[in-house]
Amino acid sequence: MTLTGHHLIAGREAAPHGHFFHAFNPTTGAQLEPVFGDATHAEADEALQAADAAFDALRTATPETRAKLLDTIAEEITALGDALLERAHAECALPMARLTGERGRAIGQLKLFAALIREGSWAQPSVDHAIPDRQPLPKPDVRRVLLPIGPVVVFGASNFPFAIGVIGTDTVCALASGCPVVVKGHPAHPGTCEMLSRAVLAALHKVGLPAGCFSLVHGKGNDIGTTLTKHPLTQAVAFTGSLRGGRALMDVAAARAHPIPVYAEMGSVNPVYVLPGALKERAAKIAEAYIGSVTMGVGQFCTNPAVVLGLKSDGLKEFISSASSFAAKVAPQTMLHRGICEAYDAGTAVWQTIDGLELAGQSEAPASEEASQAACRIFTTTIDVLESNAELRREVFGPCSIITECATLDDMLRYTAGLEGQLTATIQGTEQDLRDYAPLIRALERKVGRIIFNGFPTGIEVCPSMHHGGPYPAASHSFFTSIGTGSIYRFVRPVCYQGFPEEALPELIKDANPRGAMRIVDGVLTR
Amino acid sequence: MTLTGHHLIAGREAAPHGHFFHAFNPTTGAQLEPVFGDATHAEADEALQAADAAFDALRTATPETRAKLLDTIAEEITALGDALLERAHAECALPMARLTGERGRAIGQLKLFAALIREGSWAQPSVDHAIPDRQPLPKPDVRRVLLPIGPVVVFGASNFPFAIGVIGTDTVCALASGCPVVVKGHPAHPGTCEMLSRAVLAALHKVGLPAGCFSLVHGKGNDIGTTLTKHPLTQAVAFTGSLRGGRALMDVAAARAHPIPVYAEMGSVNPVYVLPGALKERAAKIAEAYIGSVTMGVGQFCTNPAVVLGLKSDGLKEFISSASSFAAKVAPQTMLHRGICEAYDAGTAVWQTIDGLELAGQSEAPASEEASQAACRIFTTTIDVLESNAELRREVFGPCSIITECATLDDMLRYTAGLEGQLTATIQGTEQDLRDYAPLIRALERKVGRIIFNGFPTGIEVCPSMHHGGPYPAASHSFFTSIGTGSIYRFVRPVCYQGFPEEALPELIKDANPRGAMRIVDGVLTR
Repeated sequence: MTLTGHHLIAGREAAPHGHFFHAFNPTTGAQLEPVFGDATHAEADEALQAADAAFDALRTATPETRAKLLDTIAEEITALGDALLERAHAECALPMARLTGERGRAIGQLKLFAALIREGSWAQPSVDHAIPDRQPLPKPDVRRVLLPIGPVVVFGASNFPFAIGVIGTDTVCALASGCPVVVKGHPAHPGTCEMLSRAVLAALHKVGLPAGCFSLVHGKGNDIGTTLTKHPLTQAVAFTGSLRGGRALMDVAAARAHPIPVYAEMGSVNPVYVLPGALKERAAKIAEAYIGSVTMGVGQFCTNPAVVLGLKSDGLKEFISSASSFAAKVAPQTMLHRGICEAYDAGTAVWQTIDGLELAGQSEAPASEEASQAACRIFTTTIDVLESNAELRREVFGPCSIITECATLDDMLRYTAGLEGQLTATIQGTEQDLRDYAPLIRALERKVGRIIFNGFPTGIEVCPSMHHGGPYPAASHSFFTSIGTGSIYRFVRPVCYQGFPEEALPELIKDANPRGAMRIVDGVLTR
Repeated sequence: MTLTGHHLIAGREAAPHGHFFHAFNPTTGAQLEPVFGDATHAEADEALQAADAAFDALRTATPETRAKLLDTIAEEITALGDALLERAHAECALPMARLTGERGRAIGQLKLFAALIREGSWAQPSVDHAIPDRQPLPKPDVRRVLLPIGPVVVFGASNFPFAIGVIGTDTVCALASGCPVVVKGHPAHPGTCEMLSRAVLAALHKVGLPAGCFSLVHGKGNDIGTTLTKHPLTQAVAFTGSLRGGRALMDVAAARAHPIPVYAEMGSVNPVYVLPGALKERAAKIAEAYIGSVTMGVGQFCTNPAVVLGLKSDGLKEFISSASSFAAKVAPQTMLHRGICEAYDAGTAVWQTIDGLELAGQSEAPASEEASQAACRIFTTTIDVLESNAELRREVFGPCSIITECATLDDMLRYTAGLEGQLTATIQGTEQDLRDYAPLIRALERKVGRIIFNGFPTGIEVCPSMHHGGPYPAASHSFFTSIGTGSIYRFVRPVCYQGFPEEALPELIKDANPRGAMRIVDGVLTR
């Protein structure tokens, strides 16, 4: 595939004509062709008008057609072969093995949502039959099903070009539910975005759905994102990235004449509590797994464990010394782009100026500035220092983490009570620790979306029980997840039909239940 | 019960000490004792601190204890007997029969939510077992359940002092899920609020839960509502009332350092489409039911059908003439308070200045201004006039409605496409009409929360399939309902447990499933 740098607006090729930018290879610093440019207001409007015009065709298509669309996108992605991986590698510096795995996850998601909508239960169909002779008033026939909300604007993440990008969960569950999508391409990997977008457009063509169901517009500045979020036809926004970026979009959406939800996942510090029993049993082993988690993907995961808390003890000393040794052995690696690497170096440099925060260990090998490499950096401090420095409440994106010595469980509880919302928290402990530290679990239940016992938070299982979200600022709305089958609920809303004849009802709430979906019928779950 | 006019802050009696106000009997204009006053910032803070402190006790109480709380509130309400109905009648002028019925609905809701949490399935428990030998990576054990979010601030509606008030759905589902509640009393019926609040406090005491689970603070101005919404411990707000009031709270909540959701139900015009087949068959009969719906509760329902659309025809003429006759026979009745009645008269007076909008019929009997009575007023116009006057897009709260003549289905479709979000829309038609006007149903699916066929929107069935909400400005967030069992989802969020031993898991996601709740286990719904 020859890249053009065009915006792809409902299938129309729109060459960039101003505010030009290029992608760069972060490993070499080389500029990558072709040139891209910021989309104009008119182009954003054209994309959303087309999305709105295509909405009826997409939402009234059969679930089989939409499932076929997802399966066909998966085929088209596969057909891109190594060229896709190579472009993503050039733009993001992620290792080929990682990209191959991530492509597998993205294809898995497409197939997962295809199966979900073929089956139908996801739409929570509910039927209450009439009771015409009920006293004092007859009961009407009332039924409810979830329907799509309309055009969705997607801002993909820099760190997952496939699984949280153009064909990531946001786009996939929007299309699955029947919502057209306008993607704002990520300026760090616009070529990858173009390749993936052409695959989506090819699939729409193959299954006979309008090209308006999908558009890609590029932009390096914030202007185009604001325009897309303000557009009156936009019904929701999905965003994965920084708190600053997510909050800016939330504020724009809240100030609209008709406010819309922004579903933003904005990362967190993901505290890890290493409890005494576990430290006694296996301090070095936990330290090894911890450094593995901190440095996975060069620390560029929103679930990166950026803070560790442990009680002052010999076990904690051993943990710190082991973690420092493991950190030393980690080779510096290229980050997603130069800007992220500079922010990482600047952020950890600020930390080094904080009294009472010590650099305990770091990658021995030198990090190449030219290749935008990040060294692993492990710090130690005490709970007082952690609590009294506001800079330490927010993550520095990259392979760094702070091990914190606490005097008592109360220190841990007080820190936890003062935490902002988190995507995850992790407990390393024995089963006896879990009993002894039960108040800590209770405290975490008020702060986090996922609590991990004896694992690490990086690496997310895509399954029905997954929740990837949490109280603000981890996410914009704590009810919704951005990963797993539950993510589809961001783009639908209930519609209730009262007194309709069988013939005029949506398929999932007809008495006949032709799809055999699980439903609540007269208050009882049944198939 | 002797009313005191006190704020009831976690059981503490706080006498009003400034910004005093009284309730008034809208029928007589008489001032009702005692005096109430606006709560201070310190009192709001005290209520929310107490709510936050009580949160752990409430959420970790067994579902049986919380169900017992709801059942006991129902008993305490019942024990208030006629005194409650009489005070509500004096403050709201709603007929005793209506109040008796509404009290029944409120008690029914308490029992409905008690049963819901005893059973457990509402929390959508989900279990994915580990697959330790999965390739290339082991699958961890991942489980998810819905947990309460924390203190909720409730603003009740003026028009449903029981069912959408201090012990209405908002408070009941918050307490059911484990969220403490701070109610901002409605200044039009503060005495009713005090009686109901004392019933809640008595029930908390009887079941041994902390008084901090519930507080009532009064206020006539907007200041206390803003303070409650801004308070950092508030996790969500529930509001039923005007668009202006709801939007103001939404804006305050969105501007917080940590934004929180405001679940506001803000009414709508609830269009009714009378289709040709139905007009031919039964124009007069539909007109009678329509006037019944417009004037039910003196038109003070958020689902009041404020706009009717029909195609120019003899049937429509007959409908208009019948509706006018039925309107003439409706006796003027006292509205909820003088302010609402004045707004109604002012709103319908503005309508009478609009060229092309005609008063077709109204209550023959004179409306007593002193008794805050509203006459039923039915207007007629054409689609051009309806579409070209922005004032006609928003409801005038009260027993008025506009019958609109359209030339073609296209007129109806264009009007529908231009509608703001609506709680409901209604189709009066034959089954053949439904086939002929299928595009209208498709158009309505994009705009409304509930579509009624051959019924009227007033009167809401409280059942699992009910949805009372819709796209903005009908509601603040279209995913959530404020009536029916689904309303509990506003005050909970998913928490995921990964790798936890059975012993440390919440009851609903233990393998043993002691409550026998419906759950998704390894992707399959099962009990």
